[in-house]
Amino acid sequence: MRAPALAAALLLLSGCAAVGPHAPQAAIAPAAVPKTYQWLQGSGEAAALSRQSYGALTRYVLATVAERAKGGPVEGAVLADGAALRSPAWAACGAKPAAIVLDMDETAILNTGANYDSARRGDPAFDVPRWDAWEQDGASFVDPVPGAVEALAALRAAGVTPIFISNRQARFSGQATQALAAAGLGDASAGRTMFLREAGTSSGKDMRRATVAAQWCVLAMIGDQLGDFSDLFNAKGMDPDTRRKLAELPGVAARWGQGWFLIPNPVYGPGVVGTLEQVFPDHRWPGPQTKETK
Amino acid sequence: MRAPALAAALLLLSGCAAVGPHAPQAAIAPAAVPKTYQWLQGSGEAAALSRQSYGALTRYVLATVAERAKGGPVEGAVLADGAALRSPAWAACGAKPAAIVLDMDETAILNTGANYDSARRGDPAFDVPRWDAWEQDGASFVDPVPGAVEALAALRAAGVTPIFISNRQARFSGQATQALAAAGLGDASAGRTMFLREAGTSSGKDMRRATVAAQWCVLAMIGDQLGDFSDLFNAKGMDPDTRRKLAELPGVAARWGQGWFLIPNPVYGPGVVGTLEQVFPDHRWPGPQTKETK
Repeated sequence: MRAPALAAALLLLSGCAAVGPHAPQAAIAPAAVPKTYQWLQGSGEAAALSRQSYGALTRYVLATVAERAKGGPVEGAVLADGAALRSPAWAACGAKPAAIVLDMDETAILNTGANYDSARRGDPAFDVPRWDAWEQDGASFVDPVPGAVEALAALRAAGVTPIFISNRQARFSGQATQALAAAGLGDASAGRTMFLREAGTSSGKDMRRATVAAQWCVLAMIGDQLGDFSDLFNAKGMDPDTRRKLAELPGVAARWGQGWFLIPNPVYGPGVVGTLEQVFPDHRWPGPQTKETK
Repeated sequence: MRAPALAAALLLLSGCAAVGPHAPQAAIAPAAVPKTYQWLQGSGEAAALSRQSYGALTRYVLATVAERAKGGPVEGAVLADGAALRSPAWAACGAKPAAIVLDMDETAILNTGANYDSARRGDPAFDVPRWDAWEQDGASFVDPVPGAVEALAALRAAGVTPIFISNRQARFSGQATQALAAAGLGDASAGRTMFLREAGTSSGKDMRRATVAAQWCVLAMIGDQLGDFSDLFNAKGMDPDTRRKLAELPGVAARWGQGWFLIPNPVYGPGVVGTLEQVFPDHRWPGPQTKETK
């Protein structure tokens, strides 16, 4: 972050030298925008990746729907009750109506307003009252994640129902519905096509996924966190490397892009943790082995 | 970054209180690992996204090869000379042998050792001599990007040649070849299947893509930067929002996951730039509108 910090310092210097009505009132340097926000909210790369995921989901689900219409076998995307990641099995589809399951925040909805607020304040730790205010008041400050609008339109046109499972709070379900609508993602109905977190319940989503899979043939799921696919990825006390290896188990790896679809989000979540030793368990380059070690 | 900073401070405090042979020598708090590195190198999410991209590339290319074998029309993935992003046209395939084009750093190879070195030092600005040392000495400190090994093996088995276009320096082509081999990505031959940056030439890759497309039917390209697909994304003076919109033009958006494949990298590159105003051109939430503005 050296370059942005330098830019901020220069800006501050030029601000101090300014005179007249537009001179800044206080010598407060604007903080550099954390790279995570620059990338997620500002980069063409993140927009392209999100479109890549939603495009892949759309093609996969439409192909599966066509296969199912011909009587071919289809594989549900929700893990069967009790199934392990090492030997996954899938909730049966039977004759249930087709659906997909989506996470909301940073998967369907880009919380542009809340991310602006956090970036402006230097990426502080999660602040419960502030997030509550956002859930209540933020609906007009959101964007769709790139590709989500087109994907949901195409899937609804093919008779596939989008169902949202989110840890937004059930007491703010009206506002969650408004946020989805404001992002152009259509309608959602609490308890039918939207399952938020009830007060006093776990942040885990397996129970809600099972509820949905009991009534629907869930052909695909999309999320920005591994917990949007199975709570097994969030077992307590697991170090980052072990968790990363879980995501690469053969039976799991086979689902990425084939029923399970990831949206990138380096801003928050269980993927942005770990000490230097945990994040880099091996291949620790000692740096240049000459005198020159600037 | 508040939580890691607090953890570091606590670690420091406990360090100060320690006695005996294992007490730390100096009260230097270990720096928190920047989130970009935690996510790219440590998260299951990033590993899953990379596997998702390589899986999609593999399926797309194998399907296209099969289509081509039946005499069907195939679309090359390199922009035709002079084509615009607004109305893209593609270099002709004719009877040329099938290939894919890959970027190297953070696309095929994860520079784990260099990323460790940068994370440890707090994500400093790009350091030319240090990077030169890495290009020369780093080959045994790299990993493959998740999914790359399996994808290249499957594509080579189908007669598709992987060709690397990278801004690693041509004077270190021997070491670049070593790094690819060390990552399990097979052989590369400078000037034939590997095109590095010659001293004194531009970092743009369009010329090298044109050289490759003149001899090969390039069915897909994969990279972590928009510049791995066209230099038009890196026009001078373009602000982040304009660049992001370029990546979402209809003719461009149609290629994400269908010939053009993105690998996530929030650590460096033209995607991690921009002031607060540039990164958030609109939807600037003013924060909670009550007294409580902690």
